[in-house]
Amino acid sequence: MHTAEQTCGAFLDALASKAPTPGGGGASALAGAVGTALCTMVGNFTVGKKKYAAVEEDVKALMAQAEQVREELLAQVDADAAAFEPLSQAYAIPKDDPGRGEVMERCLRAAAAPPMTILRLCCKAIDLHGKMLEKGSVIMLSDVGTGAALCRGALLGAALNVKVNTKSMADRAYAQAMDQEAEALVAQYTKLADQVYEAVMGRFC
Amino acid sequence: MHTAEQTCGAFLDALASKAPTPGGGGASALAGAVGTALCTMVGNFTVGKKKYAAVEEDVKALMAQAEQVREELLAQVDADAAAFEPLSQAYAIPKDDPGRGEVMERCLRAAAAPPMTILRLCCKAIDLHGKMLEKGSVIMLSDVGTGAALCRGALLGAALNVKVNTKSMADRAYAQAMDQEAEALVAQYTKLADQVYEAVMGRFC
Repeated sequence: MHTAEQTCGAFLDALASKAPTPGGGGASALAGAVGTALCTMVGNFTVGKKKYAAVEEDVKALMAQAEQVREELLAQVDADAAAFEPLSQAYAIPKDDPGRGEVMERCLRAAAAPPMTILRLCCKAIDLHGKMLEKGSVIMLSDVGTGAALCRGALLGAALNVKVNTKSMADRAYAQAMDQEAEALVAQYTKLADQVYEAVMGRFC
Repeated sequence: MHTAEQTCGAFLDALASKAPTPGGGGASALAGAVGTALCTMVGNFTVGKKKYAAVEEDVKALMAQAEQVREELLAQVDADAAAFEPLSQAYAIPKDDPGRGEVMERCLRAAAAPPMTILRLCCKAIDLHGKMLEKGSVIMLSDVGTGAALCRGALLGAALNVKVNTKSMADRAYAQAMDQEAEALVAQYTKLADQVYEAVMGRFC
């Protein structure tokens, strides 16, 4: 069943259970989708207001992008589970099997892809929150800051789920290229998320 | 409908929509529940393993606590929505109505309570992740780090949703006592969450 059609209670139960999926990657994707939905909500309370008429088209464009990112993040919960299953089976191949290395490498690459996608999507979501901070209704500021904080957590979760795969890859050049992209994005976007959060908290103090 | 029985897709749609609830508080509670479920998952992959027999009872105790925290966080999604509705109605009372101040103050106190509860629960969840880092299976390390990162985001989201209510309270002594508790917990537990995350990432590098 797709996560979108699963109840929140059932998803959480499956996540907590001994089943190999969903796991940390899917959890990050869902938390990122929750954070991203707040960006759209802020837009929904901004458009149609006289005070924000001058930025209405900009806000609508941000909302459309946020909706796209949220949809992709939710789809990545299922993509992450689908990519992890073959890897969890590959671990069961006897260590002296001559074909094990090649299968493992292929499965590790496949399993690293969804967390990398989730990571990039969380960066986009944080960027959108940064823009919504400038354009969105001031009565919705706490939701912008909350969205940025939740997407920051999801970004870091995704980064660990990239790393847990790259660390086991035999092809170190491939692994390091992926690690470097992840590290650069984490450094840039955790900083941006913190700036958005602090800007909101600062206005409340 | 309770959030537990709502589909993930429907919850996200409601969150993104122009409806006043769910909002940032509920979003934080759900993200915290997602992070907390990972703590239980790590336990589920630890108990029953010979290698971890010596800590099995400790791990089971951590799992039981995590299940309790997760259940309470999920319930707080609905509690936050229920407490916010009267406040959103109170804002509509004419500003020259002599009874407005008292109603607003009562509604602000009620609306601040669920985010404060969510904040405290996220601290408990981060503490449990810290303990699971010590006792849980090493093959589940990335999930401990991911859980801590997601609960850190939820903690910060909850803190903003406390502050957005306390900043409008007329009773400054009450508001400041709440702010001080929130700030102290945020300082202590974001630090612990970062330590858990960095310890996991450090073992992968």
